[in-house]
Amino acid sequence: MTIPCDIMVFGGTGDLALHKLLPALYHLYREGRLHIAVRIIALARRNLPRSEYLKLVERRCRAQIAPNDFDEDVWARFCARLDYFSMDAAQSADFGRLARFLGEAGGLTRVYYLATAPNLFVPIANHLKVAGLADNEARIVLEKPIGHSLESATAINQAIGAVFDESQVFRIDHYLGKETVQNLMALRFANALLEPVWRNSQIDHVQISVCETLGVENRGAYYDRAGATRDMLQNHLLQLLCLVAMEPPAQFEAEAVRDEKVKILRALKPICGQDVQDKTVRGQYGAGKIGGQEVPAYYFEKDVDNDSDTETFVAVEAHIENWRWAGVPFYLRTGKRMGKRSSQIVIQFKPVPHRLFEGDQANQLLIQLQPDERISLQMMTKTPGKGMHLEPVELNLNLAQVFGQTRRWDAYERLLLDVLSGDSTLFMRRDEVEAAWTWIDPILNGWQEHFQAPRPYPAGANGPDQAHSLLARRSSAWHD
Amino acid sequence: MTIPCDIMVFGGTGDLALHKLLPALYHLYREGRLHIAVRIIALARRNLPRSEYLKLVERRCRAQIAPNDFDEDVWARFCARLDYFSMDAAQSADFGRLARFLGEAGGLTRVYYLATAPNLFVPIANHLKVAGLADNEARIVLEKPIGHSLESATAINQAIGAVFDESQVFRIDHYLGKETVQNLMALRFANALLEPVWRNSQIDHVQISVCETLGVENRGAYYDRAGATRDMLQNHLLQLLCLVAMEPPAQFEAEAVRDEKVKILRALKPICGQDVQDKTVRGQYGAGKIGGQEVPAYYFEKDVDNDSDTETFVAVEAHIENWRWAGVPFYLRTGKRMGKRSSQIVIQFKPVPHRLFEGDQANQLLIQLQPDERISLQMMTKTPGKGMHLEPVELNLNLAQVFGQTRRWDAYERLLLDVLSGDSTLFMRRDEVEAAWTWIDPILNGWQEHFQAPRPYPAGANGPDQAHSLLARRSSAWHD
Repeated sequence: MTIPCDIMVFGGTGDLALHKLLPALYHLYREGRLHIAVRIIALARRNLPRSEYLKLVERRCRAQIAPNDFDEDVWARFCARLDYFSMDAAQSADFGRLARFLGEAGGLTRVYYLATAPNLFVPIANHLKVAGLADNEARIVLEKPIGHSLESATAINQAIGAVFDESQVFRIDHYLGKETVQNLMALRFANALLEPVWRNSQIDHVQISVCETLGVENRGAYYDRAGATRDMLQNHLLQLLCLVAMEPPAQFEAEAVRDEKVKILRALKPICGQDVQDKTVRGQYGAGKIGGQEVPAYYFEKDVDNDSDTETFVAVEAHIENWRWAGVPFYLRTGKRMGKRSSQIVIQFKPVPHRLFEGDQANQLLIQLQPDERISLQMMTKTPGKGMHLEPVELNLNLAQVFGQTRRWDAYERLLLDVLSGDSTLFMRRDEVEAAWTWIDPILNGWQEHFQAPRPYPAGANGPDQAHSLLARRSSAWHD
Repeated sequence: MTIPCDIMVFGGTGDLALHKLLPALYHLYREGRLHIAVRIIALARRNLPRSEYLKLVERRCRAQIAPNDFDEDVWARFCARLDYFSMDAAQSADFGRLARFLGEAGGLTRVYYLATAPNLFVPIANHLKVAGLADNEARIVLEKPIGHSLESATAINQAIGAVFDESQVFRIDHYLGKETVQNLMALRFANALLEPVWRNSQIDHVQISVCETLGVENRGAYYDRAGATRDMLQNHLLQLLCLVAMEPPAQFEAEAVRDEKVKILRALKPICGQDVQDKTVRGQYGAGKIGGQEVPAYYFEKDVDNDSDTETFVAVEAHIENWRWAGVPFYLRTGKRMGKRSSQIVIQFKPVPHRLFEGDQANQLLIQLQPDERISLQMMTKTPGKGMHLEPVELNLNLAQVFGQTRRWDAYERLLLDVLSGDSTLFMRRDEVEAAWTWIDPILNGWQEHFQAPRPYPAGANGPDQAHSLLARRSSAWHD
């Protein structure tokens, strides 16, 4: 199963590499899922001896790996497979050095993981090509966001496409590696019970929320240029929307699944003109409290402009114009410094068409990604005793409980293995990324044209009031 | 809520009265659900002083009531409301004595519970009338079976109808008082999720099983004339079938619900001619083992004919000829001396129309009435880790667990309260009973005409092999 490969991590001293990728690689190594002769080479500008880098890795990884899973012996063997190479990814010459350092590929699969700023994607790809490091077996992994608009994303995809074939490009969205997200596909397409009700005749609306309590942390410089829409809505939230809404693919394989997803993105009703004001809400957090602790306003965060009008919160009412979803609003919402950390999808079913019993409430399917991964179906049952009094009960599927014996996989582990085995089902295809931008661009432009400044909300609140009005129009509310 | 009433229990020294009715009345009394001045009068032939009867009741009831629920003080007060009256229900004169004993009704509701042999139903009703005990406020409760054929049932209904208005007649089927059975209606009609899939497009077949480990015990004389078909299939099993299959009523009230049930009974495809042999299986238990213990063959049981060809097991493939159920077999099965005590309804859904994932199995909804009352939905989910491997998980609704704080109601409690409040939703209307016999008669006649003797099965087996062949034709099997 394991294939011989070298894994090059650009941005090797960054948070993503140290918090996520190296711990994931350690877990895979420990479970024998990496080839015995695998080489993992961290690449970064900082001039560090290998021994220092290993110390840094150990210190940061230990904080991420559960003590039970940290095996000193395995760790030592893992470190023996890990190397550090100091280089400037912007300098072509450094790639020549890298090529000599790596030696002949000789049948090895080379995986380049670009855990870097997006502006380095194209230079790195080009330099790899020049240095002869981009052979047909190579794979390149790109972190979101790809670009900051349709035009820039297209340019990046074009440039990457000039070096790598689409089948070699893995645009990662780690939300798709989460168990509950994949379970959503299992639920939908492996249970004949759900498919017939998964449509506008039975579903009232869908909510997709990704709420964070964190602020922008050390990412102020990047975030202030991006904002919540580019950072989260364009990728994570739209990806989740695709999985909820897509038609059943004919096969569960990369092209068939992504064909269905892109159809959904292309069926999204454009939000422009008056709709920008009616169907979207921008917000920006002010000073407030998170977990009882005072936190500063966004515009006082490090590397953020003092009069920034970047949104740290966005809510949108999206519509999918096809037979299945006509008339069903999809409410998307994401923000920083909100009251509670929680990522979830709520499928709100319609009430029964004719109410026979008092107390009846509409069914609800909750797919929770964070803080716990769990799926819960709320149904009505009769309370014991005389009469017909109803009460909602939750039929729960707590993945950790049901599959208690199995260690929970991190999304990155799953996705890294998929890269190694060349399975791109859970990665974004070029046309998906571009279709997502096609829908996002008019919203961003609309805000600019109408000088639609973000509405303030205090840190610790669930976004500005206007976000609640979006659902209140439908006599509904966010599931908090 | 509680109304002033006298409750007369005919057959007051019988098992039903002592095991079920009096414990149920005790529970209702204890919880303040009976009027403070209620009189409960047990009627039977045996000449017993009241004190002796109360001893008998206490001895038998204590065995039925959980020690926690047995409150000496309440029991003493309950016994003060309980009287015994010795009479012969076949003797008209004894009803005159009874009338004098009871005194003036004076606005009291009189409830006559006929826990007697069915051949006493008509004489009792007539004698009550003659004695002036059958006023407009009176209610009469009849235990199943009503008759042994369409003709005899019609005659009984006619005679009872000459004394009591249909609204005064409560034909009890205690299966309808079970929480899970009523929950079946809540599930179906209070959850918009289920109704769209509750039909032939999504359901492969339905199984309704009532399996007992008991033999005929002390009921040999009755049972040998009745058999499993008259004793169980004609009433309990067909009632469950009605609740699974009925259309949503427009109101949850007696006439609307029973209108829908009777429509199902009338839509049952008649089983006659060759179908009697193809779609029904009769069985009779031979000697065998139950729970490790040797038990005798049916024909050696007390009061059973030595060459009896009465069936102690019956299985039928029923079809409902309407839009919702065309093509969906309902497999009904009941028997004595089977391997395990279990009453359940299994809704077997069809597999997904196009299989995307390996290991996918069709959904199943299990409604278990005995030994525990529980509802369980089997769905497919992904197992954690790489790939898309599916596993069935059960979303469980264990009523005792969810509503742990509430004591579990016995079906008789619920139904007795319904009698007192005059709610006949959960009782069989005259036309229901007759429609059920209309479908049963041709089966019984077919067996006689073709001399179809029951197939032997050893006690402890799940009926004769032929019962398994019924489902094997469909590549399916009983859910044991």
